[in-house]
Amino acid sequence: MIIIMERDATKSNIQAVIELLNSHGFKVIAHEGDVHTVIDALGDKTTLSPARIEAMDGVKQIKFIREPFRLASRDRKSEDTVIEFSNGVKIGGANRPVSMVGPCSVEENYDGLLQVAVAAKELGCQFLRGGAFKPRTSPYDFDGLGELGLQYLRKAADETGLLVVTELMDSTDLDLVCHYADVIQIGARNMQNFKLLKSVGHCNKPVILKRGPASTIREFLLAAEHIMYNGNEQVILCERGLKSFDSAFTRNLLDISAVPVIKKYSHLPIIIDPSHGTGQRYLIEPMAKAGLVVGADGVMVEVHYNPAEALSDGKQSLSIPQFKEVFAHLNTLIDTLHLEKSSTLSDVE
Amino acid sequence: MIIIMERDATKSNIQAVIELLNSHGFKVIAHEGDVHTVIDALGDKTTLSPARIEAMDGVKQIKFIREPFRLASRDRKSEDTVIEFSNGVKIGGANRPVSMVGPCSVEENYDGLLQVAVAAKELGCQFLRGGAFKPRTSPYDFDGLGELGLQYLRKAADETGLLVVTELMDSTDLDLVCHYADVIQIGARNMQNFKLLKSVGHCNKPVILKRGPASTIREFLLAAEHIMYNGNEQVILCERGLKSFDSAFTRNLLDISAVPVIKKYSHLPIIIDPSHGTGQRYLIEPMAKAGLVVGADGVMVEVHYNPAEALSDGKQSLSIPQFKEVFAHLNTLIDTLHLEKSSTLSDVE
Amino acid sequence: MIIIMERDATKSNIQAVIELLNSHGFKVIAHEGDVHTVIDALGDKTTLSPARIEAMDGVKQIKFIREPFRLASRDRKSEDTVIEFSNGVKIGGANRPVSMVGPCSVEENYDGLLQVAVAAKELGCQFLRGGAFKPRTSPYDFDGLGELGLQYLRKAADETGLLVVTELMDSTDLDLVCHYADVIQIGARNMQNFKLLKSVGHCNKPVILKRGPASTIREFLLAAEHIMYNGNEQVILCERGLKSFDSAFTRNLLDISAVPVIKKYSHLPIIIDPSHGTGQRYLIEPMAKAGLVVGADGVMVEVHYNPAEALSDGKQSLSIPQFKEVFAHLNTLIDTLHLEKSSTLSDVE
Amino acid sequence: MIIIMERDATKSNIQAVIELLNSHGFKVIAHEGDVHTVIDALGDKTTLSPARIEAMDGVKQIKFIREPFRLASRDRKSEDTVIEFSNGVKIGGANRPVSMVGPCSVEENYDGLLQVAVAAKELGCQFLRGGAFKPRTSPYDFDGLGELGLQYLRKAADETGLLVVTELMDSTDLDLVCHYADVIQIGARNMQNFKLLKSVGHCNKPVILKRGPASTIREFLLAAEHIMYNGNEQVILCERGLKSFDSAFTRNLLDISAVPVIKKYSHLPIIIDPSHGTGQRYLIEPMAKAGLVVGADGVMVEVHYNPAEALSDGKQSLSIPQFKEVFAHLNTLIDTLHLEKSSTLSDVE
Repeated sequence: MIIIMERDATKSNIQAVIELLNSHGFKVIAHEGDVHTVIDALGDKTTLSPARIEAMDGVKQIKFIREPFRLASRDRKSEDTVIEFSNGVKIGGANRPVSMVGPCSVEENYDGLLQVAVAAKELGCQFLRGGAFKPRTSPYDFDGLGELGLQYLRKAADETGLLVVTELMDSTDLDLVCHYADVIQIGARNMQNFKLLKSVGHCNKPVILKRGPASTIREFLLAAEHIMYNGNEQVILCERGLKSFDSAFTRNLLDISAVPVIKKYSHLPIIIDPSHGTGQRYLIEPMAKAGLVVGADGVMVEVHYNPAEALSDGKQSLSIPQFKEVFAHLNTLIDTLHLEKSSTLSDVE
Repeated sequence: MIIIMERDATKSNIQAVIELLNSHGFKVIAHEGDVHTVIDALGDKTTLSPARIEAMDGVKQIKFIREPFRLASRDRKSEDTVIEFSNGVKIGGANRPVSMVGPCSVEENYDGLLQVAVAAKELGCQFLRGGAFKPRTSPYDFDGLGELGLQYLRKAADETGLLVVTELMDSTDLDLVCHYADVIQIGARNMQNFKLLKSVGHCNKPVILKRGPASTIREFLLAAEHIMYNGNEQVILCERGLKSFDSAFTRNLLDISAVPVIKKYSHLPIIIDPSHGTGQRYLIEPMAKAGLVVGADGVMVEVHYNPAEALSDGKQSLSIPQFKEVFAHLNTLIDTLHLEKSSTLSDVE
Repeated sequence: MIIIMERDATKSNIQAVIELLNSHGFKVIAHEGDVHTVIDALGDKTTLSPARIEAMDGVKQIKFIREPFRLASRDRKSEDTVIEFSNGVKIGGANRPVSMVGPCSVEENYDGLLQVAVAAKELGCQFLRGGAFKPRTSPYDFDGLGELGLQYLRKAADETGLLVVTELMDSTDLDLVCHYADVIQIGARNMQNFKLLKSVGHCNKPVILKRGPASTIREFLLAAEHIMYNGNEQVILCERGLKSFDSAFTRNLLDISAVPVIKKYSHLPIIIDPSHGTGQRYLIEPMAKAGLVVGADGVMVEVHYNPAEALSDGKQSLSIPQFKEVFAHLNTLIDTLHLEKSSTLSDVE
Repeated sequence: MIIIMERDATKSNIQAVIELLNSHGFKVIAHEGDVHTVIDALGDKTTLSPARIEAMDGVKQIKFIREPFRLASRDRKSEDTVIEFSNGVKIGGANRPVSMVGPCSVEENYDGLLQVAVAAKELGCQFLRGGAFKPRTSPYDFDGLGELGLQYLRKAADETGLLVVTELMDSTDLDLVCHYADVIQIGARNMQNFKLLKSVGHCNKPVILKRGPASTIREFLLAAEHIMYNGNEQVILCERGLKSFDSAFTRNLLDISAVPVIKKYSHLPIIIDPSHGTGQRYLIEPMAKAGLVVGADGVMVEVHYNPAEALSDGKQSLSIPQFKEVFAHLNTLIDTLHLEKSSTLSDVE
């Protein structure tokens, strides 16, 4: 790291910083500039937190050379992480992008869920998604069926040969959710719920980690790092849209560039969610295509047997006929891209 | 609510919306405009979720007349909520603004904590704050002493006659934290951790709810609504800074206007946290003053016996001598304002 | 429009609003709700500014039914606007997406510019772009060659059979720029420079209007409206990235969804600029693809004969060999998409 | 500056950077780290643009030690800039904060303007503000009286002994505006209209530069630098609110912390505009107080003789009776603060 001292830092301020660094085994070089003294320090930041140095008198700012995430970094592992399921489905690397579809919430009508699952299987999707425990901005909204929802998901997936993705909202439900799910989802609002990250770090199921609506890419990869650091390296990142100053036409601003940026700096797979990412049914197809074309390892899309009666997120859900149309188009695109998947990312550095 | 139909909505689309509204007891009036048909609907949204209507064919957008929060709204309760503690301390209404001070994290050195508590008492502060469980962006950072931290806080507060504020990060720790704390804090990153909000809704301790770094005021009040809806009306809001496009000089952008806005739309007390709100020691005093002058019911400030050795947030913590200087100035300001507190908010509507 | 009165609005407040609306020929219906009185008003907003009503006593908020842009709206003109040049090149509608390439600034080395133009022609690009007058955040940076730059651009374009795109920064240069350019560009920082918009509204050259880095889509289309209102309907919109809270890996956040959103609400063509939109060379190819796949009518990309010696924006410019590689890929993608261009946008509404 | 090389940068990449730096007289030190090579370079950036280095092969990122603004920096001039007018009014330093009031736009009714000016003089305000040329988001809105507006302003100011502040929107109007105005305002939307900045840099009137709604503090000070670099050091900064993700209750988010941050890094005076900064009449008083208490050198407030008939910004304008009430409160606050102005900013560094 590089420590920039204030213009009015005293010699003893500078000396104190250097001594602390030396005492922790850092290699130190100081330069006296016209205005600022700059101290270069090479060493192990796990033994001396930069925050301690930042708080010392006369320190203006610290600049970091390395990214703060390590396990998630391509610097550590240059080949793509591929996550494989018992039925042979794979996510990441040169594999065909996967599809995760289903209703926002699992609802009372099991048959409606099954209809979605049947259509999903027909279209070549691999995962059935749905919420049994729902985070809701307002307490007056439907918050999920709980365990019954998990049972419905498992049953519909088993009947059709799909895998189950569902959200875990609280560490106390971990065993319950693991019992029914093949992939555990951490929602955007919980991206920095560190207790929850730690708990899924201790389980042995793949985890989909959704990017928080106001999270930087660095914070996103650090949240993945929490899971990996606790022992679970099967992390699938999911870009699902950012909060922006313009919410007149879209609910969120889907950050398509996050896909190639993360591909460059991390080895983890990343999928996109154009349903939450835009909040608009008519944007699902174009934005799914945009995600795929920049290299996303999959898409997550909300599908409901009757969006006009959905208890949540109907506006951004596809009906089954719409789903069939959109995914026929996406499959065509995926077929084309898969043939030349290695060229979707630019060689231009 | 007002439902705006798409320009190409069919007569049967419009009819379907009207019938659904009628079937739920809404009073409905439709206007055919040049471009859009507009449907006014008056009725009880708890029986028919607007999201269901939004998902119907031909619906462009729904506009709401009333704010979605109810229990937290001044429409329901026009007088200020005042929260009173067993030792007579009061927050909210025409009461003198309170002060909550202490280290970011409680650390091993109990004596350092006690020094802060002693100084706090001398300066007329009412609350000792500190984290025993710390949310950390990176897994490589210090994450708190756990129960030992709670014991230290309680002990230092009892020795000096202060009340304890500390953060709850997971609902499984609720009883533990309640055992030691007088006020439970919900951190900014957990503002929409609905399980956690529900759990503190069931306890009988006052709750400080910190605004999420990218939360709108409406989402903030809806998060308070979750707590209130579950039975706990003793909610203290805390503005602690928003994520912004400019993080070169401040860690967050402290939204001072949130204080008078929330005072207008809600009866709940609101305090400000200039330490997290700016991330800069030199901004604590001016921004605390700004918050007080617009009507905040208190300030929360990080104080550490030796910021340069703090395991977290040292950069934004005051040392004890700095704390004494800053709070002498704040007390002078509070003294002046308290005399005329009713005039701090504008009569101009 | 719909006028929502404050909960404490008096009968005479309500009456005053109704009377003003009536006196301007609006058709008015008022509803008394539990909390708020709501007034629906149908009429011509050009005769009575909503801002006047908003300022009246007792008015809480106005909600609008129609979008504020009219000339730019699809409500007024449902077919796509196509802009045609004297050499037969067309932008918009079902036409093949166009390419606009060249250096950020035109520099002293004419030969370098010509090399770019030659390569552009070979790759099927239609436009040579370059700045003769440069907006620079810092006064210490290179700010362009002025008229000499315009002459170089014209000459290189004429030698190779390309059209010239260049930025106009001040209305006093209008005639000069029109003399050399085929398309006039209004830069992102000038999107709301209304004098400039008015001046290009009076000329008869097509205008590329870049979206401001913090402009909503509504503001963007209103800026186009300024140009159209002053007589020039040949407006090409350009999405070039928004300011975001995360600038660690990209200079701006390219809003890919703006393309299909604008296609839905406006008939104007829209292109994307992945160079400014990301600020990173390696992101140009994937983000150009993303823009094309969602229906953009063209791409604008910075190409320099030697980026490492460019006086501006070298980091986000392609070298000529990189340009050839990237555009070979884009052309392949365009060829595929062009065959089925009508299906790039979703039929799902 | 510090140049961080990519992890896969070659020895010849590194050598090329070092040679270029050496050839421009920079003092260079290179460190080979575990992952990245880091090159420290001390020298004059006006001779070698960092953008050139950034574009070289193998360069990951450049980090700067010094702020890019120089003339505006406190590093260059530690004492506060004070701007003095011929009638003895002073802005900046230890002087009493000034008040600039008047309608958003100057309108046909001269008498209404005069009423505002008379009230302003009575309340001790020093400046009459008003727009003769108005930037308007929509072309359908009133855009000002032009020169007649300037004449009205001058006349009303002369009759009452005030100074005139008015906005310049286009460099072609410079002489005209200078003829009537005492202070030239550059609007927020023109903060990076560099031609305009250059033109006011050549005149000898003080300039109020409003912060762009999405401008960082660094960009804001660089815009001031443009004016100063062209010869005019009489720049008054004005914070007027930022674009945010929450516009439900306020039009903009007024960045109160910008005042003490700018006071620390620049010697220029800074005022705040709570009218545009919030867009809400009831927030003018509290936010003006917040600005004053953190050290603003003045406030700018919209006042209209009849806000309900204002052609622009009525919602955020005070009526004359409201103005009298609010400024009586502000004057009381200013009186108190003036006595101890040197203590409004924290000594805590």
